[in-house]
Amino acid sequence: MVTEISAEAPVLDRRGDQSDEAARKKEFAVPSDQRFVLVTTDRTVVNDGKYKELQDGSTLYLLQNKDQVLPVATEENINFVPHYNTLIESGTFEYFAEGQKSLPCALAELVDNALSATAKNTEGRTIEIQLLFDRTFGKPAVVVLDNGCGMTSKQLNNWAVYRLSKFMRENSTFESERDTYVRPEPVPRSLNSDISYFGVGGKQAAFHIGDSVRMITKPINSPDVHELVLSKEEFQKKEQNKEDVFKGTILNRKPGDYSHVTSSERFLQEVIKEETGKDSFTAVVITGVCPEHIKYLKQDFSEWTRQLAHIYHYYIHGANGNHKTDNSLRSNVIPQIDILVTLRDKPSYSMNLRKVEDDMQTLYINSAVDTFEFKVKTSEGGTVDGVLRYHPFLYDKETYPKDLNVLQAPVEEDDDENESGTMNQARGKRDIFECFWNGRLIPYTTVSE
Amino acid sequence: MVTEISAEAPVLDRRGDQSDEAARKKEFAVPSDQRFVLVTTDRTVVNDGKYKELQDGSTLYLLQNKDQVLPVATEENINFVPHYNTLIESGTFEYFAEGQKSLPCALAELVDNALSATAKNTEGRTIEIQLLFDRTFGKPAVVVLDNGCGMTSKQLNNWAVYRLSKFMRENSTFESERDTYVRPEPVPRSLNSDISYFGVGGKQAAFHIGDSVRMITKPINSPDVHELVLSKEEFQKKEQNKEDVFKGTILNRKPGDYSHVTSSERFLQEVIKEETGKDSFTAVVITGVCPEHIKYLKQDFSEWTRQLAHIYHYYIHGANGNHKTDNSLRSNVIPQIDILVTLRDKPSYSMNLRKVEDDMQTLYINSAVDTFEFKVKTSEGGTVDGVLRYHPFLYDKETYPKDLNVLQAPVEEDDDENESGTMNQARGKRDIFECFWNGRLIPYTTVSE
Repeated sequence: MVTEISAEAPVLDRRGDQSDEAARKKEFAVPSDQRFVLVTTDRTVVNDGKYKELQDGSTLYLLQNKDQVLPVATEENINFVPHYNTLIESGTFEYFAEGQKSLPCALAELVDNALSATAKNTEGRTIEIQLLFDRTFGKPAVVVLDNGCGMTSKQLNNWAVYRLSKFMRENSTFESERDTYVRPEPVPRSLNSDISYFGVGGKQAAFHIGDSVRMITKPINSPDVHELVLSKEEFQKKEQNKEDVFKGTILNRKPGDYSHVTSSERFLQEVIKEETGKDSFTAVVITGVCPEHIKYLKQDFSEWTRQLAHIYHYYIHGANGNHKTDNSLRSNVIPQIDILVTLRDKPSYSMNLRKVEDDMQTLYINSAVDTFEFKVKTSEGGTVDGVLRYHPFLYDKETYPKDLNVLQAPVEEDDDENESGTMNQARGKRDIFECFWNGRLIPYTTVSE
Repeated sequence: MVTEISAEAPVLDRRGDQSDEAARKKEFAVPSDQRFVLVTTDRTVVNDGKYKELQDGSTLYLLQNKDQVLPVATEENINFVPHYNTLIESGTFEYFAEGQKSLPCALAELVDNALSATAKNTEGRTIEIQLLFDRTFGKPAVVVLDNGCGMTSKQLNNWAVYRLSKFMRENSTFESERDTYVRPEPVPRSLNSDISYFGVGGKQAAFHIGDSVRMITKPINSPDVHELVLSKEEFQKKEQNKEDVFKGTILNRKPGDYSHVTSSERFLQEVIKEETGKDSFTAVVITGVCPEHIKYLKQDFSEWTRQLAHIYHYYIHGANGNHKTDNSLRSNVIPQIDILVTLRDKPSYSMNLRKVEDDMQTLYINSAVDTFEFKVKTSEGGTVDGVLRYHPFLYDKETYPKDLNVLQAPVEEDDDENESGTMNQARGKRDIFECFWNGRLIPYTTVSE
């Protein structure tokens, strides 16, 4: 006799005393003179010890013997929800490949999102990277704050969903109000802030920087602030308690209400107090930042801010870039975009990326002897803008600028104990071309010869 | 008055007629002289039209007016299960970066899994790549078959779970039987078959090749075959019907039973008929293969089999590689690994990768004038084996072998309409070093100068 039963069925109530074989035979209507065995679909015999360990929903077979061939096929229900690591660790592998530059790249991902959020601002666009490392504020935190359009609770919920492209986001509870992606109008150098192409960006960047991310956001025309915390600790706790890992809570509250803030995160009080009076905003609050990251962000402050100034050069200085000497070459329209970086520690620093004068793009622009601009339309309706700059070897001197903080290609360890061997690309040589995607530098991209 | 109610609560039974405001006031115990409004947490007023569109589980506010400030914070339950595209599309981006070589790389991922599965075989290890393109068999299919240890239904379930590292796999229903990862014993050139480091490999490789993957597997010492189908079509159907996308069914059946096979997949009958008599095996059956892939696999058969022979050179020929002329240099132990490729079409081809004589590694080995071997122990206990080969320019002739099918670096289109700009790395120049990870070539990895 073969019976497929489920541990969910009442007949297999594991709370009762199931140790008596006779009782079980009665329960499964097995004649008392017949031998039977209860096995999992992996043919493990479910004896009394195993019985208690069984998980709910397990499919079991009632067989004459353990190895009896199944006379009929059976179907077993399974669940294969992705592991929460897809959400919190996916950045590890991506940013690992970028080596020393991984933190600036992760921060840039968050700046990308802020640029997208502020793209339709009618007044100035302000993006602040705050490094709150002074221990009097509580635990160390990295906050990326923008005065953009904010997110509705539905959009915040969808932000938390791991997916591979933003084109699949749901924006409204109501079918009739769903957004469809609209390609922005063409603007010079594609400075349309339509940067963050993949939906994975924000979460993986945040979890590359720390262990926990709190999104605080207020959409335009809403009286409510929405908050959502995703944290590694919380995921682990839920997994241990066999709870649904992908269930969470959005806190909806009025602006300025910090009654839920604990003393270890008292820096949040300041962040939340400043909410009142803002029409809309988004704050990405990252905690659980590891000591190495804190050390890098403090010690190499000028290096990584310089890298960010290079990446967002055209957003900061306009389509023509930062021409320092010849005003006639400057862009007519200077973008109203401020990217501010603040380090609150002892001592504190504050810096507007527009004031960076030695980012590579500024050096390239101001040392070129001649430039050639071109524009190409692709058959799919896209546009490629290009600039060739001429840096001759002139009067016994190389006019091509030197990178002040040259990125040393890491010495290949060729170590078969970690996967670095699979990641390190040849980057020993200097780039000749650089690619900007919608106005934003894509690190490490080079044009093939 | 602010009341947080849930659409799940019986008070908001949307099946009834809810169009009468007076009736609703009664239902929510609102005094008849008081105005009220029902809004979502995004402050969309739920009028009669919207009411019917509401999704189950929506949190609603009962407010005096739409913009009333929340006097108390409210919590809203959300769900953020990853989108199924993480499972079926993750390969798209990875393999996209590898351009023309994407199909051999995806097939190699499946060969990796087969090598791992057969690592403990006591008899010969056989891995077959079958391209079933003869339309008399039904729809076109790519089958990767191995005579390895197979998977239990629990392991098959876990195979389907998207996660980022195999170190987190669950192998048993029972806590007490969980496997922990054991690093294999050191062997020459690390030919331990412990290749597939990331858990994402198999699924993303399969979905890069086609739209549907059927895993058929029989573990050692089990009388049952387990089958699981993941298909894009099925995922889409479930999403449309708002069903749980990550719930599926494993079919458990006796070997050789193909009663569930439809005529459009009649090639499966052959695959399943051959099950009887095998102690264990795994077959990865991919359908929904697009015409371009079929064309490439047929037309460039010799090119991609040559690439696979290069990638698995040391698995096929042993730790010393394929020394064609000098037998004394050959490995003492030739691995009992056969990687067979069969194209069933008109005409049919069949090929054992060991017979490939012009893969790059064979050419390198047989043209080098001198070699220098070294071994380095890393501080973490790993070992790096290295071989330097000397290919001098000799008697007016370059002894470094030419790549017969040189991979042309794709012409950079610099097109801001697709993300290729973010992916193409500089690959114009020839590699000087190549990295093998546990004996398997990692494409595109180079040692930094």
